[in-house]
Amino acid sequence: MRPDGGDIVKSMHANPTQAPVRHGAMRAQNLGLVLGEVARGGPLTRAALAELTGLTKTTVSRLVADLLDAGLVSEAPAVPGGERGRPGVEVSLSGDRVAALGLEVNVAYLAACVVDLTRRVRVRKVIHRDNRAERPEDVLAALRALGDDACAAASGLLVAGTVLAVPGPVGKGRVHNAPNLGWRDVDVAALFGRPVTVENEANMAALGELEYGGAPSDFLYVSGETGVGAGLVSGGALFRGVTGVAGELGHVSVASDGPPCRCGATGCLEVHAGRDALPSQDALASGDPSALDACRRAGRALGVALSSAVNLLDPGTIVLGGVYAPLFPWLAPAVEEVLAERLASLRPELPALTASTTGPDAAVLGAAGQVLQRVIAEPAAYARSTA
Amino acid sequence: MRPDGGDIVKSMHANPTQAPVRHGAMRAQNLGLVLGEVARGGPLTRAALAELTGLTKTTVSRLVADLLDAGLVSEAPAVPGGERGRPGVEVSLSGDRVAALGLEVNVAYLAACVVDLTRRVRVRKVIHRDNRAERPEDVLAALRALGDDACAAASGLLVAGTVLAVPGPVGKGRVHNAPNLGWRDVDVAALFGRPVTVENEANMAALGELEYGGAPSDFLYVSGETGVGAGLVSGGALFRGVTGVAGELGHVSVASDGPPCRCGATGCLEVHAGRDALPSQDALASGDPSALDACRRAGRALGVALSSAVNLLDPGTIVLGGVYAPLFPWLAPAVEEVLAERLASLRPELPALTASTTGPDAAVLGAAGQVLQRVIAEPAAYARSTA
Repeated sequence: MRPDGGDIVKSMHANPTQAPVRHGAMRAQNLGLVLGEVARGGPLTRAALAELTGLTKTTVSRLVADLLDAGLVSEAPAVPGGERGRPGVEVSLSGDRVAALGLEVNVAYLAACVVDLTRRVRVRKVIHRDNRAERPEDVLAALRALGDDACAAASGLLVAGTVLAVPGPVGKGRVHNAPNLGWRDVDVAALFGRPVTVENEANMAALGELEYGGAPSDFLYVSGETGVGAGLVSGGALFRGVTGVAGELGHVSVASDGPPCRCGATGCLEVHAGRDALPSQDALASGDPSALDACRRAGRALGVALSSAVNLLDPGTIVLGGVYAPLFPWLAPAVEEVLAERLASLRPELPALTASTTGPDAAVLGAAGQVLQRVIAEPAAYARSTA
Repeated sequence: MRPDGGDIVKSMHANPTQAPVRHGAMRAQNLGLVLGEVARGGPLTRAALAELTGLTKTTVSRLVADLLDAGLVSEAPAVPGGERGRPGVEVSLSGDRVAALGLEVNVAYLAACVVDLTRRVRVRKVIHRDNRAERPEDVLAALRALGDDACAAASGLLVAGTVLAVPGPVGKGRVHNAPNLGWRDVDVAALFGRPVTVENEANMAALGELEYGGAPSDFLYVSGETGVGAGLVSGGALFRGVTGVAGELGHVSVASDGPPCRCGATGCLEVHAGRDALPSQDALASGDPSALDACRRAGRALGVALSSAVNLLDPGTIVLGGVYAPLFPWLAPAVEEVLAERLASLRPELPALTASTTGPDAAVLGAAGQVLQRVIAEPAAYARSTA
């Protein structure tokens, strides 16, 4: 039998010195269990939750009361079905209290987004500015202010946490080197000055695409910005690598004797296919031959780097995001041409190539989603932090 | 409470129509549980096994009796410790009955290896021959005969299964294209004519390195042969990709306008650093300048492809195997030079580069190990198959 609160109360009497801790840990685990089922399959009645979790109805009722108190769930009368008896009350995630803040430093803009627990986007804020021109502390101060504005605009919501996406490899809150921003060994978490989790932009955008873009559970998300990054989602989870910096597609070699990259190497993908190498959508739409030619060259370079990525990762699907999404109609044919040239003889199927449907918000959405995942996995920790 | 055999016997009486199936499934699961603990931590007494598994001593004794009958474990008096009471009897994996056959088709040889359940190598057989010169069915007939010889030489052992490693992408027992062998859409499993699991050579060699070479639980194994493959081990398990063909390092682009590869693309790593591009160890040891120069060029090409792999996979450690292992002293400086040039500015640490310690047997060892893993995970299925 699965241990539940009811059983544990008995053991508290048997062994009062140890039981309180155990009771707390058990209650925390069971709160997460119930909230997880509500998030996955809600709205659900208490009876359905008892059946799904294996907990008693009494325990479920007590846990649901705690979740209601914490503003994590709400209840509403069940839509009358064919069954007999009085209509039940169903429990759903509540979008009325708990929210998450996603932030992003891009080379060309700052973004903030408040998402409620039901994943509804409540506030979006973007400031276009050249972040290369300023010191990291000034950029982060501006982002903090933008985040404050976003939270203020989300009146009535309590922000449970913040995840900040940066365009570069991240470890322990620090950016080792984000050459396109000109940031080197920047302690982003410390400079931000508030509790924050720092994550790589492409990884967060991949999660945003997974949660909001209807991507399959296995895909390589490619973030085309001034730099080029990627996030690999494998079985619905990020593949992060040993030190957490997997997915640096932008520095995959396209032509090892190619032009120098800001990272210090030569012939990296982002020299050939970063934002600076791409024509505008207007020029492409108007049929400008030199724009079409530039896009084709960038697309072929992207195809070479992606063929290496497919050879190594076998991702199934490739989703082109960032500035690549609006340019997809012009970029995709060149990419697909190279994928076919380099891969068709070796594997029975070529990977599917699609455009991101999430748009430029992918990273802030994914960042906010990370906070919500944590709240849903550990509601007790959240409730403690706000008590 | 964890359900064990004793509880289930009771439920059989309560519900005789459903219980036998359940009893069988439960017994099978508990057999795997006990054998898994023996494999992980043996030798162990029955009392220790009861404690580790949560099963009753009576149930453990019954399960151990079944495992003894199946020849999967053996028992021996415990080495006397400091404890009181009569000395116990300890249970270990038995190397006396159950074994596994690992087979490999390489471009330049065929190999077979019989490994007993304790992982001791009992028989090795290698035939050097050019497998490009013959039809797949003839190559596989020769390999089958070699496997029979190996099994015959392992007298007294019962081979529980066979895994066959081939140098090319594998799906559902078929090789889609192994250009270095000249095999295209070959149904290896069907042509072999006996029950066999077909796997990629580099993946099996990576597992061989993990089990026999003392590699860490995260690394990229690079198999340098006529072709070049790789197997990524992440958290102690193979990363296979969506269609099972991840790790095709040999076709990662080094110079997209480079010379043509047998796969149909241009500038693939294996054109620059496959066996045919490498000098002999003798020539290098004698200091022949043109050999040293060729090795340096191959090492730099390998460095470019590996820098792309590190950017994408962040593997922590790179293990060079196959023909790269004996050439490591000459190859490694050029590889490390390029890894530093291309990666040092972007990440705080460069990956460690080491030579395989398993040698040319890595793939057959890993292949045999796959069979043993299956036996240990599902001893009941094995016992049924030999009953």
